[in-house]
Amino acid sequence: METVPLFDMHFLHSEIQEAVNQALTEDRTRYDVTTRALVQSELIGRAVIISKAHGVLAGIDTAKETFRQVDPSINFVAQKKDTAVLTPGTPNSAIDSNLIAKVNGPLASILTAERTALNFLQHLSGIASTTNKYVQAIQDHNCIILDTRKTIPGLRELQKYAVAVGGGKNHRKNLGDGVLIKDNHIKAAAIEGLSIAGVIERARERAPSNMKVEVEVETLEQVQDAVDVGADILLLDNMTLSQLDAAVSLVNGRAITEASGSVTLANVADVAATGVDMISVGALTHSANALDISLDIVEIT
Amino acid sequence: METVPLFDMHFLHSEIQEAVNQALTEDRTRYDVTTRALVQSELIGRAVIISKAHGVLAGIDTAKETFRQVDPSINFVAQKKDTAVLTPGTPNSAIDSNLIAKVNGPLASILTAERTALNFLQHLSGIASTTNKYVQAIQDHNCIILDTRKTIPGLRELQKYAVAVGGGKNHRKNLGDGVLIKDNHIKAAAIEGLSIAGVIERARERAPSNMKVEVEVETLEQVQDAVDVGADILLLDNMTLSQLDAAVSLVNGRAITEASGSVTLANVADVAATGVDMISVGALTHSANALDISLDIVEIT
Amino acid sequence: METVPLFDMHFLHSEIQEAVNQALTEDRTRYDVTTRALVQSELIGRAVIISKAHGVLAGIDTAKETFRQVDPSINFVAQKKDTAVLTPGTPNSAIDSNLIAKVNGPLASILTAERTALNFLQHLSGIASTTNKYVQAIQDHNCIILDTRKTIPGLRELQKYAVAVGGGKNHRKNLGDGVLIKDNHIKAAAIEGLSIAGVIERARERAPSNMKVEVEVETLEQVQDAVDVGADILLLDNMTLSQLDAAVSLVNGRAITEASGSVTLANVADVAATGVDMISVGALTHSANALDISLDIVEIT
Amino acid sequence: METVPLFDMHFLHSEIQEAVNQALTEDRTRYDVTTRALVQSELIGRAVIISKAHGVLAGIDTAKETFRQVDPSINFVAQKKDTAVLTPGTPNSAIDSNLIAKVNGPLASILTAERTALNFLQHLSGIASTTNKYVQAIQDHNCIILDTRKTIPGLRELQKYAVAVGGGKNHRKNLGDGVLIKDNHIKAAAIEGLSIAGVIERARERAPSNMKVEVEVETLEQVQDAVDVGADILLLDNMTLSQLDAAVSLVNGRAITEASGSVTLANVADVAATGVDMISVGALTHSANALDISLDIVEIT
Amino acid sequence: METVPLFDMHFLHSEIQEAVNQALTEDRTRYDVTTRALVQSELIGRAVIISKAHGVLAGIDTAKETFRQVDPSINFVAQKKDTAVLTPGTPNSAIDSNLIAKVNGPLASILTAERTALNFLQHLSGIASTTNKYVQAIQDHNCIILDTRKTIPGLRELQKYAVAVGGGKNHRKNLGDGVLIKDNHIKAAAIEGLSIAGVIERARERAPSNMKVEVEVETLEQVQDAVDVGADILLLDNMTLSQLDAAVSLVNGRAITEASGSVTLANVADVAATGVDMISVGALTHSANALDISLDIVEIT
Amino acid sequence: METVPLFDMHFLHSEIQEAVNQALTEDRTRYDVTTRALVQSELIGRAVIISKAHGVLAGIDTAKETFRQVDPSINFVAQKKDTAVLTPGTPNSAIDSNLIAKVNGPLASILTAERTALNFLQHLSGIASTTNKYVQAIQDHNCIILDTRKTIPGLRELQKYAVAVGGGKNHRKNLGDGVLIKDNHIKAAAIEGLSIAGVIERARERAPSNMKVEVEVETLEQVQDAVDVGADILLLDNMTLSQLDAAVSLVNGRAITEASGSVTLANVADVAATGVDMISVGALTHSANALDISLDIVEIT
Repeated sequence: METVPLFDMHFLHSEIQEAVNQALTEDRTRYDVTTRALVQSELIGRAVIISKAHGVLAGIDTAKETFRQVDPSINFVAQKKDTAVLTPGTPNSAIDSNLIAKVNGPLASILTAERTALNFLQHLSGIASTTNKYVQAIQDHNCIILDTRKTIPGLRELQKYAVAVGGGKNHRKNLGDGVLIKDNHIKAAAIEGLSIAGVIERARERAPSNMKVEVEVETLEQVQDAVDVGADILLLDNMTLSQLDAAVSLVNGRAITEASGSVTLANVADVAATGVDMISVGALTHSANALDISLDIVEIT
Repeated sequence: METVPLFDMHFLHSEIQEAVNQALTEDRTRYDVTTRALVQSELIGRAVIISKAHGVLAGIDTAKETFRQVDPSINFVAQKKDTAVLTPGTPNSAIDSNLIAKVNGPLASILTAERTALNFLQHLSGIASTTNKYVQAIQDHNCIILDTRKTIPGLRELQKYAVAVGGGKNHRKNLGDGVLIKDNHIKAAAIEGLSIAGVIERARERAPSNMKVEVEVETLEQVQDAVDVGADILLLDNMTLSQLDAAVSLVNGRAITEASGSVTLANVADVAATGVDMISVGALTHSANALDISLDIVEIT
Repeated sequence: METVPLFDMHFLHSEIQEAVNQALTEDRTRYDVTTRALVQSELIGRAVIISKAHGVLAGIDTAKETFRQVDPSINFVAQKKDTAVLTPGTPNSAIDSNLIAKVNGPLASILTAERTALNFLQHLSGIASTTNKYVQAIQDHNCIILDTRKTIPGLRELQKYAVAVGGGKNHRKNLGDGVLIKDNHIKAAAIEGLSIAGVIERARERAPSNMKVEVEVETLEQVQDAVDVGADILLLDNMTLSQLDAAVSLVNGRAITEASGSVTLANVADVAATGVDMISVGALTHSANALDISLDIVEIT
Repeated sequence: METVPLFDMHFLHSEIQEAVNQALTEDRTRYDVTTRALVQSELIGRAVIISKAHGVLAGIDTAKETFRQVDPSINFVAQKKDTAVLTPGTPNSAIDSNLIAKVNGPLASILTAERTALNFLQHLSGIASTTNKYVQAIQDHNCIILDTRKTIPGLRELQKYAVAVGGGKNHRKNLGDGVLIKDNHIKAAAIEGLSIAGVIERARERAPSNMKVEVEVETLEQVQDAVDVGADILLLDNMTLSQLDAAVSLVNGRAITEASGSVTLANVADVAATGVDMISVGALTHSANALDISLDIVEIT
Repeated sequence: METVPLFDMHFLHSEIQEAVNQALTEDRTRYDVTTRALVQSELIGRAVIISKAHGVLAGIDTAKETFRQVDPSINFVAQKKDTAVLTPGTPNSAIDSNLIAKVNGPLASILTAERTALNFLQHLSGIASTTNKYVQAIQDHNCIILDTRKTIPGLRELQKYAVAVGGGKNHRKNLGDGVLIKDNHIKAAAIEGLSIAGVIERARERAPSNMKVEVEVETLEQVQDAVDVGADILLLDNMTLSQLDAAVSLVNGRAITEASGSVTLANVADVAATGVDMISVGALTHSANALDISLDIVEIT
Repeated sequence: METVPLFDMHFLHSEIQEAVNQALTEDRTRYDVTTRALVQSELIGRAVIISKAHGVLAGIDTAKETFRQVDPSINFVAQKKDTAVLTPGTPNSAIDSNLIAKVNGPLASILTAERTALNFLQHLSGIASTTNKYVQAIQDHNCIILDTRKTIPGLRELQKYAVAVGGGKNHRKNLGDGVLIKDNHIKAAAIEGLSIAGVIERARERAPSNMKVEVEVETLEQVQDAVDVGADILLLDNMTLSQLDAAVSLVNGRAITEASGSVTLANVADVAATGVDMISVGALTHSANALDISLDIVEIT
């Protein structure tokens, strides 16, 4: 698969810094009473971060940044890059496919940072892993998996990055990034007597000239109307497989088609088989399960 | 169940304001190109927020605050309070158990705020609903469900609030709130030749005088040692049911017992049956599933 | 002219608040030593804001917000809305076309806020007035005036709003809002052996699916290539009038055309006469002249 | 002219950092969709910043800081210092008087930063260039050019620095920096029956003991009164040349004199010839024209 | 004594808001575990703030703002204004000279805010009370008490306000507010061969034209030199009473004189008797003692 | 005395950075008009920081951070660590017990930073010195000195650190760190008919499970009640020496005892002699006197 620019971690550095800072603040790491009481700040040691499950790694830089913010003298050496495939293992299997990173430095600082680093890694790797299962499921079809704006508040950019790591594509990031006419917009515009065709035309006229117009449609009549007035992208919402079949035929290449609603790992291949160009899945980000990853002190130097 | 002070939304007002502001910023609601192009800012209308699934409501104030920050002239009228039981329904069933809130005001503003409000409601209600299933599962035992620090970065306070709404109790909120000696602390202290008993004694000596000492133990020998030197709370980590049985007998009321590790809805009742005082479940917050909730425009005035 | 959504001040409220706060901070209005020494804080009076030149009003809400932030008890009553035509006058001509606002309240606060309020009004009205001259100059042609990203650092949103008030249209607001391939992008891509056609194709492939592709071209050959591979918008940069003529003929409606470079009030009508769809003018924002507006105390009550 | 400490860039470092950060934020450089799509982040190249007009350079450190904030790995090598005289040129004239800086590093980062860096350089150099024309125009007189508080909101410090680079002097920076009694202050104080002499006396009594007292006067009577009660500086506002002559004679060295109002390049020498000590010009900052400066990629390594 | 403008609380509102917010944050009032556990948020009650010592009240608005920020529904009714003379009393003496304020509202909120409100009141009233003793001690002399920049970090503005409430005057607030040449400046300038006279002349030449020049002198020779070159104010540092006598004679009204160094309540009258115009006392702010003030719940409604 | 973890400066780094930044901002060090006018930024020199009084050093890192923030090129070399005993001296006694630090670098920067660095050092060393006198006074008793939450707003963490440097112990840092039931809590709870015993029981039930319960008692009856229901710590408030004797006997080791109220250096040994475990002294932080410390330029290189 060709490298997509969005994979480039360089562009996310500021988001990572801010998210890590916020997470450390809410954990009050400056005031870790247990570590202060038990571990001298000069004590040096070594730990490993390992996977205890199958999945796809995402967020290695969030872990690195967490340790850096807690203590710049910690030496964090990643053993894998994001997109790496993970398998379960134990702390002692040092070169195996489960070893994610080695962390050396003041043990007090490592212990203070541990939970926050893992919270990021587990959440983002969980998203990448789930996304990858969807991507694998439709690999025989000419179709792509998209995310949505149904994200956990505060983590939009990082969650969407994890989707990309898992092989998905990102839909618009926010309300300023693209024109997407939803059913509620159509209802609101109906007050002024606008038909769905009228709404699309107004959007083409008034929206920024450099943006395409996407519209959510729920019936074949709406599909017909939208294509006729030149909508660029159709969001086929909550349609049955047979409706999707019909919609794809009706569009016949005059617009891009995107299916959404009630898509699961069990039915995603069937949806892709209808010929839609894209499938968007809210659960990738709103219902992500953490991947099991842990940190273990392995040696005292 | 007696009302626990932590339910009191009054204390969370600042957290809600900040989290909503951050979420609106990342969604760039100020620059909603679709709504600006299609809906006049003077157009007034009405919408409802409804549940489309069974569950427990949590986060009603986050939704209210979202609409307020987008446009103070929106009138948000909650129809239910947090802890309310929800059932699935449709927009037309106005007084039924699925009606969460009525939202009146400028439609442009309502449309701009919609996704962010739902993202909060769906996530928090998802946590409360899942927590409540665990609480129901052990209702015949004298045992409580606890959360952990395994939370989504940035949402610690709100997630823990949702756990409380679902009937769970909150473990310490952050590293400054309590002394919890984990296995990695014990490994670090071992360098200086400290036994687990020595570690607990040092914690009692050096930690703030107003805090109890909790320690993670993995074997019955450790249980014995910890109780002997006066640990206040034992975290029984990843023990089998029979190990838990034995640990509870060994402790015999001299300390509080907390079970953790690999607890699921399927086995939580068995764990509670061993007689432990508390069970902590990381999945409540690190792998929460969203509850299906939607907003629908119902009428134009 | 139909009201364009971007005129709606509602969407700019936050930008105004922040810009005013920054301006008051840099003027250290809290520490106005002259006013503190001379004017008692209880002294109430009345002032007027008047135009002393011909032009178009823009930024009335920035002035209102300035007085509000300095002292909420000031009563600011706008006498005109943005887009109003202004003529020169004196403080005594109270209902004439030069009266912009009446300001009543504590004189100490009014004096402290005066300079900041005027700085905003003069700058933004200057931009609107100049823009309007360009718009008037091409009113006989089916062509629109655009702004650019050549703005005064820190005032992008407000400057672009003032352009819209003057009758111009806004080009993209920032680097995330649209795809615009400039000559330096083409030079960079040439390293990999990409022709201009190759660059445009890559942009269509990789850029967010909801955005159109605009490309800067300097020769007729580039125009031909760009149109052939489906560029949506052509930025015709620094072309002579005859080159523009030829380019418009060559494009023949297959793409939108935008002229830019060395456009002045003296030649803008000639440029429009070539048939281009849009003309962008950097000087609207990077070299704006202030409009002469003043505040005068008129009466002590 | 002896170097005045205010030229020392060291003292402006924080202002530059903050202004650049704000400008990059409003341009959303983190989300440059065009560059992400077209240019790999590893691609290294070289660009030059050149002048395309006659003028005086100001703000070289703002350009340097812009590239640094976008990407610390960019190597920015200034070829000139602020106050350098610029002449027009092309990218190929590498050692000529038009070469401002060389910029080497990742081309993606250079392209992202380009516009913001130029916006600063063009604006500040425009101010320095215009100021310098005023300074040149009065070089035969013992008189200095001053700026005012009529600045573009948010850029006060940097604009005043550019005035100093052009050879002008800075009047007070903000309301806390000095006592300047304007006509509106005099009107306000008149309520309590205070004459202009009474106002000046009150200011001398109440204002911070370490500040001189400056007062705006519009008639010769006011000049007489102000000098008699010991005003330190007289702001002679909107006087004709003959009035200025008379005022200077009347003052006769007992106070410092400053002319202001309707001063242009055409008449500034005549104003200076009246013998006033200082001339303040609002247009230096409120109506600055950008100097034409550009960035060109010159070579791929 | 005539009311000095600096008394006007209106100008300090922002400082108070920020200082209170910071103090509440460091006390983590959002997380008051004791009050949450014991007091229901609906419980309404009444408290009084009373003085338990002799002194001068300062900072009543900081107390009001503290309660407002914790809970806007609290009703805080001040019974005295700043500068009021306080005497010791008990909670039951409701109209006596010791009753500072009545506080009604949710008891949980009042208890949470109590300590922070008192910390402000006690500190600021302590400063005002001490300052007032110095002012009383020299009331028979034509001399004023000044504060210094020797303040508690973070509280400069509020401490200086408290000095003014106690009857003292404020010296410059910060390094940008005035020119004060200290001994270390003179030592540094000596490198370039500058005498003290040379230093003063350079300051008059280069410093902002609206500021007077103050210089610290330690010997009569320096006094002579400074007066000769036109220093505006002399800071007579650590001189004996006889040296002060001689210096005042030497100056003979040609400059303002300020004594400083080792001034106490025991010797301040003697210092004033030397005829100096001003006496500055660092201990007013760097060694302030708290005034005893308390809050008592008096009634449950 | 064994090293207590709270001594570890590593944990306070962020607090120091923020406090120093705030102090430099309020002193407007960026705009030091005196130093800008008199000292060239290239001039290098050397200064020493010396003690002019007997005491205990605290806050050396705040001084270091102050110089670093003003100018990173300053070389600050501490000659002593916090807890060092200081004696009075002069700048020329270079190796003596009064030499705190050597500061080399640009003299302009050193002069600008001087006052802020000294303000921190004098305040914190003042607290440590006073605390140490209390600690010395009770060294023959098995008793410890505690601080309180009666601190100067904004400096809580640093003040409590200085107490620890002086040999005292820190009571809870803020309202979230521990349960302390004060007289006003008891009055509030009395509304619901709760006795002091009832209050303590409710606290044990509802407060976080990991915190002990401390209660303020004023009579022997309350002591008896509190011990009977299992309070962990008793705060014996404003008791006479004989009451304290009786209370200690009554408690008889079943709870920890803490005396508070009207404790001075004169009577602290008598209080300790009653056998209480801890004595808390508000004056350590609310009425601290500065220690006399100065900075002197000693040599120009």
